[in-house]
Amino acid sequence: MIKVGIVGGTGYTGVELLRLLAQHPDAEVVAITSRGDAGTAVADMFPSLRGRVDLRFEDPAKADLRACDVVFFATPNGIAMQQAPGLLEAGVRVIDLAADFRIKDVAEWEKWYGMQHASPAWVERAVYGLPEINRESIRGARLIANPGCYPTAVQLGFMPLVQAGLVDVQHLIADAKSGVSGAGRKAETHSLFSEASDNFKAYGVPGHRHLPEIRQGLGRMAGNPVGLTFVPHLTPMIRGIHATLYARIGAEADFQALFEERYANEPFVDVLPPKSHPETRSVRSANVCRIAVHRPQGGDTLVVLSVIDNLVKGAAGQALQNMNIMFGLDETSGLCQVPLLP
Amino acid sequence: MIKVGIVGGTGYTGVELLRLLAQHPDAEVVAITSRGDAGTAVADMFPSLRGRVDLRFEDPAKADLRACDVVFFATPNGIAMQQAPGLLEAGVRVIDLAADFRIKDVAEWEKWYGMQHASPAWVERAVYGLPEINRESIRGARLIANPGCYPTAVQLGFMPLVQAGLVDVQHLIADAKSGVSGAGRKAETHSLFSEASDNFKAYGVPGHRHLPEIRQGLGRMAGNPVGLTFVPHLTPMIRGIHATLYARIGAEADFQALFEERYANEPFVDVLPPKSHPETRSVRSANVCRIAVHRPQGGDTLVVLSVIDNLVKGAAGQALQNMNIMFGLDETSGLCQVPLLP
Amino acid sequence: MIKVGIVGGTGYTGVELLRLLAQHPDAEVVAITSRGDAGTAVADMFPSLRGRVDLRFEDPAKADLRACDVVFFATPNGIAMQQAPGLLEAGVRVIDLAADFRIKDVAEWEKWYGMQHASPAWVERAVYGLPEINRESIRGARLIANPGCYPTAVQLGFMPLVQAGLVDVQHLIADAKSGVSGAGRKAETHSLFSEASDNFKAYGVPGHRHLPEIRQGLGRMAGNPVGLTFVPHLTPMIRGIHATLYARIGAEADFQALFEERYANEPFVDVLPPKSHPETRSVRSANVCRIAVHRPQGGDTLVVLSVIDNLVKGAAGQALQNMNIMFGLDETSGLCQVPLLP
Amino acid sequence: MIKVGIVGGTGYTGVELLRLLAQHPDAEVVAITSRGDAGTAVADMFPSLRGRVDLRFEDPAKADLRACDVVFFATPNGIAMQQAPGLLEAGVRVIDLAADFRIKDVAEWEKWYGMQHASPAWVERAVYGLPEINRESIRGARLIANPGCYPTAVQLGFMPLVQAGLVDVQHLIADAKSGVSGAGRKAETHSLFSEASDNFKAYGVPGHRHLPEIRQGLGRMAGNPVGLTFVPHLTPMIRGIHATLYARIGAEADFQALFEERYANEPFVDVLPPKSHPETRSVRSANVCRIAVHRPQGGDTLVVLSVIDNLVKGAAGQALQNMNIMFGLDETSGLCQVPLLP
Repeated sequence: MIKVGIVGGTGYTGVELLRLLAQHPDAEVVAITSRGDAGTAVADMFPSLRGRVDLRFEDPAKADLRACDVVFFATPNGIAMQQAPGLLEAGVRVIDLAADFRIKDVAEWEKWYGMQHASPAWVERAVYGLPEINRESIRGARLIANPGCYPTAVQLGFMPLVQAGLVDVQHLIADAKSGVSGAGRKAETHSLFSEASDNFKAYGVPGHRHLPEIRQGLGRMAGNPVGLTFVPHLTPMIRGIHATLYARIGAEADFQALFEERYANEPFVDVLPPKSHPETRSVRSANVCRIAVHRPQGGDTLVVLSVIDNLVKGAAGQALQNMNIMFGLDETSGLCQVPLLP
Repeated sequence: MIKVGIVGGTGYTGVELLRLLAQHPDAEVVAITSRGDAGTAVADMFPSLRGRVDLRFEDPAKADLRACDVVFFATPNGIAMQQAPGLLEAGVRVIDLAADFRIKDVAEWEKWYGMQHASPAWVERAVYGLPEINRESIRGARLIANPGCYPTAVQLGFMPLVQAGLVDVQHLIADAKSGVSGAGRKAETHSLFSEASDNFKAYGVPGHRHLPEIRQGLGRMAGNPVGLTFVPHLTPMIRGIHATLYARIGAEADFQALFEERYANEPFVDVLPPKSHPETRSVRSANVCRIAVHRPQGGDTLVVLSVIDNLVKGAAGQALQNMNIMFGLDETSGLCQVPLLP
Repeated sequence: MIKVGIVGGTGYTGVELLRLLAQHPDAEVVAITSRGDAGTAVADMFPSLRGRVDLRFEDPAKADLRACDVVFFATPNGIAMQQAPGLLEAGVRVIDLAADFRIKDVAEWEKWYGMQHASPAWVERAVYGLPEINRESIRGARLIANPGCYPTAVQLGFMPLVQAGLVDVQHLIADAKSGVSGAGRKAETHSLFSEASDNFKAYGVPGHRHLPEIRQGLGRMAGNPVGLTFVPHLTPMIRGIHATLYARIGAEADFQALFEERYANEPFVDVLPPKSHPETRSVRSANVCRIAVHRPQGGDTLVVLSVIDNLVKGAAGQALQNMNIMFGLDETSGLCQVPLLP
Repeated sequence: MIKVGIVGGTGYTGVELLRLLAQHPDAEVVAITSRGDAGTAVADMFPSLRGRVDLRFEDPAKADLRACDVVFFATPNGIAMQQAPGLLEAGVRVIDLAADFRIKDVAEWEKWYGMQHASPAWVERAVYGLPEINRESIRGARLIANPGCYPTAVQLGFMPLVQAGLVDVQHLIADAKSGVSGAGRKAETHSLFSEASDNFKAYGVPGHRHLPEIRQGLGRMAGNPVGLTFVPHLTPMIRGIHATLYARIGAEADFQALFEERYANEPFVDVLPPKSHPETRSVRSANVCRIAVHRPQGGDTLVVLSVIDNLVKGAAGQALQNMNIMFGLDETSGLCQVPLLP
């Protein structure tokens, strides 16, 4: 039984980790911390966990996280870079669901995140936890930078095309739509029901923090820097990301076959038949990315549709997938939830 | 491995049965029928099931349902009463998720459902599948009348009070609110997104078909006919029922303790601490009923709040709970989903 | 042209006052204050008002509210009781949309609102602004206590029955459901989209602040104290209140005719035909209360359904209706919006 | 007073026309037809209109539409082309809210709409009712082809760029998101609340009927055929369209100034300040298009955000705007609703 610790479990990625771990056959949460809610029973904050999770939130200063085999950071950006190194040096493996270790270029990270990095050395050693491209490195990793939600949907959608060098990588467009849970559980006016429901808007068009992360990932696949226009939107649903991707064709190919072959052995990527339109609800609550490829009217522009549940394949589920790989478990262990529809 | 057949699997209770059975360790769906969609792959209609359900809908006339151990009817009212008897006589057990066998008074049934009953003899032999009151009869049953969604939430909320004889059963009030999936997957104007979202309304106030079912159940508990005002409402969410129940106190008691004791050994009924307000999302996707008891300002009126997921404890989950009991399995087998929150 | 001031215009009742006043032929907003947002253009905060409202929020300390004919307080509870007296003494009329002047029993008010009242003398002189019962007093009023949203829907639904003395007023039940905008625009976790959507719950069952207000109003109609069980619920829509009211019949009458006659001359109360179910969207954005009366199965319990838009007839619209009456305008002036459906 | 007839008033554009016309000072609905609902009072179908619209739906065969000054067709595609010519020849002006007269190339129309055109001669004489580009022709028109909802949002967003010849018109991309009311009031499974809420999907990627309409409009502006990739999506809200438009810059300019100047005199197009993100709710219920222009990171791709209420500026509101122009009224008459927020 893998002993799991969670730092910062009061947000949506925290409760989602708890939901998934409560059903994981090979792992067990032994400690969960929260500065503000220490002492509170987890199931009092999240009544969905009544009868399934008996833990209380512990004061981070008092929790014995070094007794864990692995610690998940479900904290705001800037926490893991301070607390993870101590754990790592004590031999604990760490999976950070925030952005602290995602960007290799520390100066770039500091520009987008507006703070000085506390642990550049560990940035270098961190493995970017997108199993579909980094599975081998993940196996031996001590520190995983778990990808962001938009970056997961966008990279999986572009990957076959970019790796095969078939599209113009200087002018990629990612028009992405996210459910409101992507903004977290923090009380902010723009995330209120009366603001976000029955409404649709873009945000962060001048520049969103996930842009450098996606650009870095696609750049590695391409072997060269890429040009990307990334426009995120907020859509009135709780969970789900839908990325609509546009790429100009550079060389002809059977694009449907390309996607099917690229993902033939991936347990959590599902390429739909031609002419399909994946819906976010078809992956709700499950660790799956569903993808469809279109070439409208046979023109020179490809349209790729890619959907995930932002809290599962876009966060907590992918983190567990990484844990499974790191600990030599079956990669799908504890991740076989059937999506909830309707 | 229990061999399961499903008749009429294209509605919401059908897809929910499939979701739950895909994760059930002791049962396997071997046939699913649909008159209108015979030949269609189940996963083409419900993409959430891609990779998990490989069946195709079969023509009811051709499906070999007699080879099943148990057949679920997830059909409109009036179908099971015609097709179940043949299966029952062939030794197949039947669980009807529709209303055909719920009301013992056949004339009453015919009045509310507007058709002649095709199988009154089996009405008499059917067991009403509310395990919290009928567990022993369910064990030996050949035919289960699976309770309606409203009746499940309302009966579980009133049961301790009525069985203990502590309230005025001539003037019970059940003010119930349902998500829209309760209306099924049939295309009807009033269930359209643009009609049902951002809106709230009562319906069926002059008389709803679940009224006689609830009255029958409460009457049995009381040992006498009861008086009930039942007002259902439609609320803009997909899943969930919230029943707010009002009863005049007839005799004093520790009502919190009464509920806790009554349900102490029930795996799927959770009595919340005093002053609690159960939320429908705290049971979303799970086979649980959560209940809270209030006595506002110490007055003479009790308020009971009872929530379920209408498609799980209110339909498919309870049907599987009944199957587990009938076949001597652990009652919770395949029913340990953690509710999806947020 | 009536010169209007608004104190505290950054919440939902504030923006709703601005929406309605922008279309009012006889009134004009000349000043709007906000402590936190002084200097901000109103239309920058509420882009729906671009091109229609050119004001900026002013510092309350600097705004010349004494030059107004009437000042609306769209502030949290506890502000108007401090600032209104000065204005009133300067001859300005005041309409308070908060609760400061609603409860005549100051001790009772202090108990429910948890603060000492700063202006008991003005409580005595304030007129409760429910035109359907207080129209004559409103005409001459200097200070209006604008009713709460729940109290408006509940009182209008019970009024004909209680005034006629036809029901048992010791055991009234009001089961009310509100859209999330009723909680205001303040950033709080429980009002987040991801918390409040696809969810339904009761709250405040042990005691809600609108209970004493409703009890006071019904008590005056009855001429005696009444007994009321009041259970508010949160439903996932932006606007709207649906009150489902239960009363035991004390004396026979033609209840449909009673309601139709009582409200025959009311411009903003619409009694629906028998067997109707009013929907909240049928009053969305409009200053209307629609009511239906039922007597299910001819029993001894009446069910009244009453719907309003909580921000219009439940707040800003009713405030303007009061203003119209106070200033001798046509009561419907500026209040003829057709409800927005769908 | 302009006498107005409406053919086919039971859908969402029908009820929206009625809502707006009920508040129009210079026009009056004298007849409304419906084949299926003849005899029904309009306010019985749409209770939001109780007290405001006293008409009944009439049998189309019996209604005296020739006595009208103008007739709106709010019918499915294929009806107006059969019934409008008779009215036109009798001197009645016609505004078709469906697609029958939008596409000048009749063969192209027949390909996309799958039927033979009944009135090609009137296609030639019809004026495409986008006032921002065709105002002068509309003044003298007898027959208006009212634009589709997506085409309105997309054309207004691209217009300044395409007219000025500043972008690569061979590779335009329009990623558009629509509320569910765009699918109409017809009962169809995919528009059910339980299917469309808490979900996001693209549809019609291989080809949507609004594609040729948009291509025709942009082609006229450019003076040459354009290349356009158009991807519509369904988002869980009732009203609203958000178009996110991508164009490669061909020649440098001050794009913000370009938009502001192009629309300086347009009463219903609002260009937001730099860095803005228009929200659909900022135009809810109003005849406004709000637009923002972005050039992310100073790159070579422009991003234009354009929002409308699909039922107002995208349908009924624009139809009334056309009527106002045709009859020499103030263009904004009856169209000054303040958007409903929240």
